[in-house]
Amino acid sequence: MSLPADFPSAGESARVEDDIIKRIAAILGRGPIPRGERHIGDDAAVLAPFVGQALISTDVAVLGVHLDESLFPLEDLGFKAVASAVSDLAAMGGRPKGAVIAVSSPPGTDLEELHRGIADAAVITSCPIVGGDLTRSRDVSVAVTVFGECPGKGAVLRSGARPGEKILVSGPLGRSAAGLRRRRAGASLTDELVVAHRRPWPRLAEGVAARGAGASAMMDLSDGLGLDLNRLADASNVGFALDDIPVAEGATLQEAISGGEDYELLIVTPHLERLRMIFTDRGLRQPIEIGRTVSDVGSRTLRGEKFERLGWQHQL
Amino acid sequence: MSLPADFPSAGESARVEDDIIKRIAAILGRGPIPRGERHIGDDAAVLAPFVGQALISTDVAVLGVHLDESLFPLEDLGFKAVASAVSDLAAMGGRPKGAVIAVSSPPGTDLEELHRGIADAAVITSCPIVGGDLTRSRDVSVAVTVFGECPGKGAVLRSGARPGEKILVSGPLGRSAAGLRRRRAGASLTDELVVAHRRPWPRLAEGVAARGAGASAMMDLSDGLGLDLNRLADASNVGFALDDIPVAEGATLQEAISGGEDYELLIVTPHLERLRMIFTDRGLRQPIEIGRTVSDVGSRTLRGEKFERLGWQHQL
Repeated sequence: MSLPADFPSAGESARVEDDIIKRIAAILGRGPIPRGERHIGDDAAVLAPFVGQALISTDVAVLGVHLDESLFPLEDLGFKAVASAVSDLAAMGGRPKGAVIAVSSPPGTDLEELHRGIADAAVITSCPIVGGDLTRSRDVSVAVTVFGECPGKGAVLRSGARPGEKILVSGPLGRSAAGLRRRRAGASLTDELVVAHRRPWPRLAEGVAARGAGASAMMDLSDGLGLDLNRLADASNVGFALDDIPVAEGATLQEAISGGEDYELLIVTPHLERLRMIFTDRGLRQPIEIGRTVSDVGSRTLRGEKFERLGWQHQL
Repeated sequence: MSLPADFPSAGESARVEDDIIKRIAAILGRGPIPRGERHIGDDAAVLAPFVGQALISTDVAVLGVHLDESLFPLEDLGFKAVASAVSDLAAMGGRPKGAVIAVSSPPGTDLEELHRGIADAAVITSCPIVGGDLTRSRDVSVAVTVFGECPGKGAVLRSGARPGEKILVSGPLGRSAAGLRRRRAGASLTDELVVAHRRPWPRLAEGVAARGAGASAMMDLSDGLGLDLNRLADASNVGFALDDIPVAEGATLQEAISGGEDYELLIVTPHLERLRMIFTDRGLRQPIEIGRTVSDVGSRTLRGEKFERLGWQHQL
């Protein structure tokens, strides 16, 4: 954890900043540090050698853009930023090794509250926060970079789907968007769908299971099925034929398609039975089959009708 | 490279954003991608297995805080953000494997110019940009996370110095602060000291050489010797006695002590002759001896007088 380069290089303010960093480090440093590793406190964090391929992803969340501060506590911004980044590792079938956090904020921001949300997400995803940076800006912004490893078989890319394979999602869709709608209408912070919006759960176990079961392509649904499935199809150079969209209880079809932030996994596989068996063996909820890939890259349908990428929300 | 989670999940704006990402990817993707790796374009980047310990560091640079936009082009913000982060790897004796970039900016920001500066720094440090994220905010902010590897002997920490060792710096100090002063007084962007401020050069080769020569502690001078040497002494639980501060030509003593952003390395070693020999063998500029560590942790002196951490600027 280092100070910004042009922070006053001497004087009381620098000592205050060092003190803030110590308090934040105490909030983040909940677990034991493995022997030979070095986390917060040096120029860079030092981690034990990775097993297999290294995976890296970065996500930035801005207060007012990614979280409405009139509806949600600041700690939710930290939680969501970490969960969103870890979900990118889940989407490759990887497991997290750690994360670093760069926070920009105006004076007076409750950095301890923000970092409590970061720490909560780090604990539930087993992803220790190993370093960070603090600087000033007008907006509160949290940039999270996660890194993970992919032992055994390689990471599952977006681009590996072939025609004639099954398309599945790891759970029903639209919970996050429905939760946001309910919160705007006055639902409490502990309402089940509101919690789904505030505390998204990266599907790490499901991603590892799908990779082990020979999934050909995978991604996480961060921007909604309507956009993300088209991106996967673009990357894999296939079309698709959807039979159904699994709408979560309490959500609308539009929320399920274009709501985003569900962080369920979109899985394509030629080995459906193996996938089902491995999920059952591991005690994971069965993924839901929604359709199949087709060879005509321009053919993208839901129950035989065109499934538009553009203007989808307005056509519902 | 992924879109922010709540970006309009369908419609023209999403397509425009995907197009911007493609243009940025073209600016960043200058080199060949190693076989089996996957950089921009999936949920996470996939890299070949690391050799030895993994090193991670993150730095954020904000326009108006870390760069005065009335004096410098926007591309300098990108360059400095990457160079500053890579310098943290140099400070451990590591070598870079890659970086990810999270950019927040208001509409109308010239993202291509910003990323040209990022790409320039990536090329000179042999640190490919393997992924990123874009989002909106009021400030232009660049969060850079670098990761590197440390083959052979482990990383050099701040905390390894013992009493009676030599303290060196990899070059004369104050160039960056002097360049900023000169630019404010009207010097051109190509003035040598102004360039030192705009285009800091991470001391990667020097860091690897110092690690190989058995340095006991190391860090990069991002906040100025006056603060950073005290931090190293705190971490190592030693004091120090400085004989001299090497002031760069054109800089003042104050700029050399508290200017920051020089990114020269601060090196402590019990093996001075070995260090000198290895630097000579590798054709590197000889580091400059500035003093020695002492056992009394409270004894921190320059030519026998107290070397203050607090209020140092005002005491000059």
